[in-house]
Amino acid sequence: MLQATPQEDKTRDDGQKKASLDAWVTHYQSYAAKGQNASYIPALEHINSSQLGICIAEPNGTIIHSGDWEVPFTLQSISKVISFMAACLGCGISYVLERVDVEPTGDAFNSITRLEMHKPGKPFNPMINAGAITVSSLLPGKSPQQKLEVLYSLIEKLIGKRPTINEEVFQSEWKTAHRNRALAHYLKETGFLESEVEEALEVYLKQCSIEVNTKDIALIGLVLALDGYHPIRKEQILPKEIARLTKALMLTCGMYNASGKFAAFVGVPAKSGVSGGIMALAPSSTRRVLPLQGEFGIGIYGPAIDEYGNSLAGGMLLQQIAQEWDLNIF
Amino acid sequence: MLQATPQEDKTRDDGQKKASLDAWVTHYQSYAAKGQNASYIPALEHINSSQLGICIAEPNGTIIHSGDWEVPFTLQSISKVISFMAACLGCGISYVLERVDVEPTGDAFNSITRLEMHKPGKPFNPMINAGAITVSSLLPGKSPQQKLEVLYSLIEKLIGKRPTINEEVFQSEWKTAHRNRALAHYLKETGFLESEVEEALEVYLKQCSIEVNTKDIALIGLVLALDGYHPIRKEQILPKEIARLTKALMLTCGMYNASGKFAAFVGVPAKSGVSGGIMALAPSSTRRVLPLQGEFGIGIYGPAIDEYGNSLAGGMLLQQIAQEWDLNIF
Amino acid sequence: MLQATPQEDKTRDDGQKKASLDAWVTHYQSYAAKGQNASYIPALEHINSSQLGICIAEPNGTIIHSGDWEVPFTLQSISKVISFMAACLGCGISYVLERVDVEPTGDAFNSITRLEMHKPGKPFNPMINAGAITVSSLLPGKSPQQKLEVLYSLIEKLIGKRPTINEEVFQSEWKTAHRNRALAHYLKETGFLESEVEEALEVYLKQCSIEVNTKDIALIGLVLALDGYHPIRKEQILPKEIARLTKALMLTCGMYNASGKFAAFVGVPAKSGVSGGIMALAPSSTRRVLPLQGEFGIGIYGPAIDEYGNSLAGGMLLQQIAQEWDLNIF
Amino acid sequence: MLQATPQEDKTRDDGQKKASLDAWVTHYQSYAAKGQNASYIPALEHINSSQLGICIAEPNGTIIHSGDWEVPFTLQSISKVISFMAACLGCGISYVLERVDVEPTGDAFNSITRLEMHKPGKPFNPMINAGAITVSSLLPGKSPQQKLEVLYSLIEKLIGKRPTINEEVFQSEWKTAHRNRALAHYLKETGFLESEVEEALEVYLKQCSIEVNTKDIALIGLVLALDGYHPIRKEQILPKEIARLTKALMLTCGMYNASGKFAAFVGVPAKSGVSGGIMALAPSSTRRVLPLQGEFGIGIYGPAIDEYGNSLAGGMLLQQIAQEWDLNIF
Repeated sequence: MLQATPQEDKTRDDGQKKASLDAWVTHYQSYAAKGQNASYIPALEHINSSQLGICIAEPNGTIIHSGDWEVPFTLQSISKVISFMAACLGCGISYVLERVDVEPTGDAFNSITRLEMHKPGKPFNPMINAGAITVSSLLPGKSPQQKLEVLYSLIEKLIGKRPTINEEVFQSEWKTAHRNRALAHYLKETGFLESEVEEALEVYLKQCSIEVNTKDIALIGLVLALDGYHPIRKEQILPKEIARLTKALMLTCGMYNASGKFAAFVGVPAKSGVSGGIMALAPSSTRRVLPLQGEFGIGIYGPAIDEYGNSLAGGMLLQQIAQEWDLNIF
Repeated sequence: MLQATPQEDKTRDDGQKKASLDAWVTHYQSYAAKGQNASYIPALEHINSSQLGICIAEPNGTIIHSGDWEVPFTLQSISKVISFMAACLGCGISYVLERVDVEPTGDAFNSITRLEMHKPGKPFNPMINAGAITVSSLLPGKSPQQKLEVLYSLIEKLIGKRPTINEEVFQSEWKTAHRNRALAHYLKETGFLESEVEEALEVYLKQCSIEVNTKDIALIGLVLALDGYHPIRKEQILPKEIARLTKALMLTCGMYNASGKFAAFVGVPAKSGVSGGIMALAPSSTRRVLPLQGEFGIGIYGPAIDEYGNSLAGGMLLQQIAQEWDLNIF
Repeated sequence: MLQATPQEDKTRDDGQKKASLDAWVTHYQSYAAKGQNASYIPALEHINSSQLGICIAEPNGTIIHSGDWEVPFTLQSISKVISFMAACLGCGISYVLERVDVEPTGDAFNSITRLEMHKPGKPFNPMINAGAITVSSLLPGKSPQQKLEVLYSLIEKLIGKRPTINEEVFQSEWKTAHRNRALAHYLKETGFLESEVEEALEVYLKQCSIEVNTKDIALIGLVLALDGYHPIRKEQILPKEIARLTKALMLTCGMYNASGKFAAFVGVPAKSGVSGGIMALAPSSTRRVLPLQGEFGIGIYGPAIDEYGNSLAGGMLLQQIAQEWDLNIF
Repeated sequence: MLQATPQEDKTRDDGQKKASLDAWVTHYQSYAAKGQNASYIPALEHINSSQLGICIAEPNGTIIHSGDWEVPFTLQSISKVISFMAACLGCGISYVLERVDVEPTGDAFNSITRLEMHKPGKPFNPMINAGAITVSSLLPGKSPQQKLEVLYSLIEKLIGKRPTINEEVFQSEWKTAHRNRALAHYLKETGFLESEVEEALEVYLKQCSIEVNTKDIALIGLVLALDGYHPIRKEQILPKEIARLTKALMLTCGMYNASGKFAAFVGVPAKSGVSGGIMALAPSSTRRVLPLQGEFGIGIYGPAIDEYGNSLAGGMLLQQIAQEWDLNIF
């Protein structure tokens, strides 16, 4: 672990890492022009698409950042990871997995076909919308407010501050969420949804509208990297089993229909959102050389997304880091 | 690495590991009764379904085994891993990936639907039959014999002996391979198959019929664990890039439609075949305690398979080992 | 036409027809036990499933009936025919067909898969739920009430009395219509639905809950048989083009997933509903011998339905009549 | 029937009908430019795509023709109708329908997806390739030659001459029939195919390559129109049941994925082939006015096909005739 490294070296290392990040951010920012902001959520369309930022959170509290790391953005699909953890914490892993499987699909994130094709219509994993809406309905609490409170509490524990909703984004999604409503009604009919449709959607769309920055998601990534242990709070926030299950899901299903390609060519657990965020993490590794041998969390933001829904420049930046610093878990 | 461990300890450790394996094999053998031998390949139906064996191969040459570890069985789908490596070695990764993607699907291993649904019909990954037959057609060589020779050479390098075909199994598969022929003709029409249909099928079905035992596949797993380095030959057999890509594919797509569940609850790259074999591996890890901290390969054989096509007792045995020895890569 | 037949013969014929119907109804009633009432609409579950009734309406006003012909039942999917005619009357055929195709599918009536598989998601025909909900949204009028009024007016013209809604059935469907809501939201997202989702569903589910008896639907069948001409009102209610288009749709898509089999073995345009009603009709034919050479309408009711959703005894009764009286249009 | 018409009138009528056909052929020939010859069968690509011809065969032996009516073309999918009749004649309707259903699908003619989606994979109807290949395998006979002989005999009875194969087209199809081979192997695996794959394909592709002209298929249409009675041979060639079943299949499934639209807007049983042929027929009708009140057969040829696979100009010509002469059966 890094604590063994002498302090001088550490500071020098931090500067070196920061310099690398700065160079890569500058380089990959130019690629953002090839992507486009998500258009199906009206409020996301008008954001400056050339932004790119990154933040790295280390177990000793060091935060290294570069570019537009402080720009707030909404979690969108990254929230699926957090609500899954919250549901497992609240109901137990086996209860959750009776209602949502953990198999990747190769289908679009908002696909409804598989629910009909594979009786009895159990969602294949919590990283596609059908599974995520189901998971939101499982959160403890009798009302959307209570369910969201469970989520907010977990996030507050993870990032050290109470999250806020971007109301404009929420309203924008709420009004146009016909595909998600179709999914939720389908799940209600097949019995996988545990709350009323509109309540599940309120929870789901509000969790998608939670505003964060790259440091926030880097911290969540760090806790996952440490198997649920929060190094600053010095507290085990999640059982190891939930943390590992979550990381496996991020690797197999986290990057939409490019999840397989990310696993193959980047090789770290990561979850993206159409707002351009990517939450990733690096496990500890003996084979890695300096600068970063231990676990750390990674938060990236770049709102221009590619055909799969992943931040275009952000994905390239993550791949560069994984290669340069040898983060690939395989 | 284990070489730092004093010799006495090592021997004691080996005995301890062997004792654990023996106990687990005895325990899980009783579960085999809940599975059934693969029935769609006639020659596999009549094998003693209560068999269970395991072999572990360590970088220092230590081989630890238990149960029916020496029983020969045919590679079946495990061969998909080897032909993928051979094709990447022969044609380059990018050439191969232009003809087969690396995305998990959630569909049955012999499904044809996705080829029609997702134009232009590129197979989603090399671990499903459509992708594997495509890969077999890409192997260097102008005839099935030449293509198979490429495969045999790679296997010989990996396991130290020239592989043999189980002719009875091959004939049995060859005569009943209508679904695979359907896939191959479909791929020929869409242009992804690079050889004639019957030639691709000859290569594919012969590679499926290669006979091995658990030690053989444990050795291949070991080389993958070491990123392509063969510790006994002291030679880099595969470039690191191919080894890692292969391991990522094993984790995301290697255990048929239970791949996601294996990633979630076992957490090691593994590939199964309907003959009951599982080839797996453990990477190096700082967090693991004794007995096995460094990389090693795992070969398992248990012919009774579950609803997904994976060795029933073998899968349970692998999960037990992964939990007890903390092999989960997440 | 039958008016040329001398009165005595006619009366004798009517008696003969009635005797045949009575015998067949008695015979096929016993088959009802093999079917089951529709269970997905709670209010339909508790109806006496052994009922069977039929009514035939001739152009000269003669009504011949047998069995439980007077029992009121709800239109359910039979209403799809009427709303399609009303939409074509109100908006023109081409406007309607830009939003719903006229192709049979082979899929379940409530399937959603094809909307996703075939971009841009235009419903394949107005006899499956996706198409019928779309059609309901096209009815002239700014509110559900206005749209329903258009429908009620047409029905009043056709059957001579203002229809009423079975409120219990409507409430039962309204509360459990999750699959239909899924379809409607999907159609809203793809842009085929022209009103708000809840409004379209109110229209659709109320039209399904309109209460009729076999005489009512026999009259509608008669008007269709006469290419839109109402022989009692002596008025062309529908243009010939709409009537023929509607009859073609009934033949190709009217009997759920047994439509092809009905076309093949019964051979008359017919539309069924899960409440057990079948609205059918016989065209004029030179080849037919007595008793019925000219056009007539047929209404059947038998609440026990088969695996496809069609009245089990009712379908058998219709096939018997079509064979005995040589009604097959082919 | 027309024999009641005085001879002078008849001759005058025939002239009038011929004049109408000539005018329409001239008019619709210009539309051929919007279509394209089938490209997936190499031998069809180079045919003059501006051809258009029609032939009408009446029960009294009158043949009226216009345009390129004598140009030979291959049956292609029109042969599906004939092999279906031959299989029903040879094995009985119920035997055939145990192996192929009579439901329209809405899927592409060469689709394989539904075989996998709907267990146990029974082809939905004999007008799509999966069903037609199955039907070809059911023809009586132990070899392709014997099965084809059954087909040739039926055709000889129908058109009065022994059919010949266009060897160039057959060879062209045989070499490129990968999709059909995929279908056939799939059907072999699921057990619906009753002969060896290559034998079934030889029969199927040879029947597709049978050369006819518009008069030949008009004669077949005429026999179907007369419920299986051959008016020139004065012989019942097919039982009425087979003829009607066949006509129902033509109407619901005969025009590829435009079958529903043809039923809706043309309204006569018709079967097309990608070579540009359309075999259609008109039943007897009391409502029709002169010139053609009784049954007749229609043969059309126009090699430029539309997006669905139907002769573009030929389909328009058929629609014109159906409207002008009021042939719509609804």
